[in-house]
Amino acid sequence: MDPTESETACFEAGIKFGTLYHQFAGTPVSPESAESLGRAMEEAIENQPHCADVQVTMRTDRIEAELADQSAEYTEFTGRFADVTMTIEYEGTTVETSMSMEGDYPMMRVDSVAED
Amino acid sequence: MDPTESETACFEAGIKFGTLYHQFAGTPVSPESAESLGRAMEEAIENQPHCADVQVTMRTDRIEAELADQSAEYTEFTGRFADVTMTIEYEGTTVETSMSMEGDYPMMRVDSVAED
Amino acid sequence: MDPTESETACFEAGIKFGTLYHQFAGTPVSPESAESLGRAMEEAIENQPHCADVQVTMRTDRIEAELADQSAEYTEFTGRFADVTMTIEYEGTTVETSMSMEGDYPMMRVDSVAED
Amino acid sequence: MDPTESETACFEAGIKFGTLYHQFAGTPVSPESAESLGRAMEEAIENQPHCADVQVTMRTDRIEAELADQSAEYTEFTGRFADVTMTIEYEGTTVETSMSMEGDYPMMRVDSVAED
Repeated sequence: MDPTESETACFEAGIKFGTLYHQFAGTPVSPESAESLGRAMEEAIENQPHCADVQVTMRTDRIEAELADQSAEYTEFTGRFADVTMTIEYEGTTVETSMSMEGDYPMMRVDSVAED
Repeated sequence: MDPTESETACFEAGIKFGTLYHQFAGTPVSPESAESLGRAMEEAIENQPHCADVQVTMRTDRIEAELADQSAEYTEFTGRFADVTMTIEYEGTTVETSMSMEGDYPMMRVDSVAED
Repeated sequence: MDPTESETACFEAGIKFGTLYHQFAGTPVSPESAESLGRAMEEAIENQPHCADVQVTMRTDRIEAELADQSAEYTEFTGRFADVTMTIEYEGTTVETSMSMEGDYPMMRVDSVAED
Repeated sequence: MDPTESETACFEAGIKFGTLYHQFAGTPVSPESAESLGRAMEEAIENQPHCADVQVTMRTDRIEAELADQSAEYTEFTGRFADVTMTIEYEGTTVETSMSMEGDYPMMRVDSVAED
């Protein structure tokens, strides 16, 4: 069957998460540069179609903990260094989504789907 | 409301497309190297959860056309250089998806959603 | 032969340019989001060893020209959308480098090498 | 001063390493998909100017060790999962370079510089 409006809205939400993660994974990051990376991530993804809002909370606490255990003064951006929420509006459907750690895995989730 | 099984399946499908596109966008590519890039894209994305199959058809015709118009002998991978189909299986739901050009835009689509 | 100090300094400079370009190529970008992307690029690369300064001038004029010719309201970051200068300091050697368009190719160059 | 031929050759070598690392960092990888990723990396980078040869040895041993410690059945490509050697030929200069782990850091090095 063809997808419903809400299924398409969820597909669009997934695209944004895959983009955010894999565009920026590997970026050199430190506690000092985390803020500018978070802002760039938000504004980059908000360009994509149907993306109403992106909030990236950089986990500088986790970046600092990582640096305490290694020789270099920076590390590479990966999922555990940000908590993300995103709102997708596709036609009459609003999808709320988030990414945060679930054990050792950066889990991306649909938190709610609402139709007008 | 919480997402349905089929909405979550579509969300998972979107994640894979965003990953495929933004992990590999910008990769140096030529007609000669296109095949190995396509294989790597397929196998990389098939690692992700619920991803049953990925088929990447590299559009070497379009890469060749691009090179005819420019000075360098390679270009950067972007959406118009591949047609992609992907099958996601999430619990009892199968989602068929694809990416191909729609005018000048590499459109990602849910082609069908089927429940057992 | 082993590399000289200035050869190693130039190698380090090249690493930074390859990083900057290929980490961020493909990022969704618009005239409105260009500034935050430029700041993130600067601060990310300045984390790398021996990197004293990075200046990224986003070419919003070229992003706007690109958007005038296409259907979507954003495009993907690529080399012609930024002019970059970078200073590398490796032991007693300072290397000045830049990236800007040379015809249709985003040329990365060593502009000068100075030893103390 | 303007760079010498061998300094420019080393700059070119650095560009290739930054490209290889930051284009592919974050790619989903497993012991099964490592080989195709390694081939794509080699062929992608060999497209770049002055790049005579790239050899990527995927460290599937280290990927397996990583998977033994985590819940997911794949991980993200990063520097410790590949040993790389590269030959750059710029005019009359040949530069041999490599990347391998030095403690916990994926060190990129110029191994030798030879002029005709």
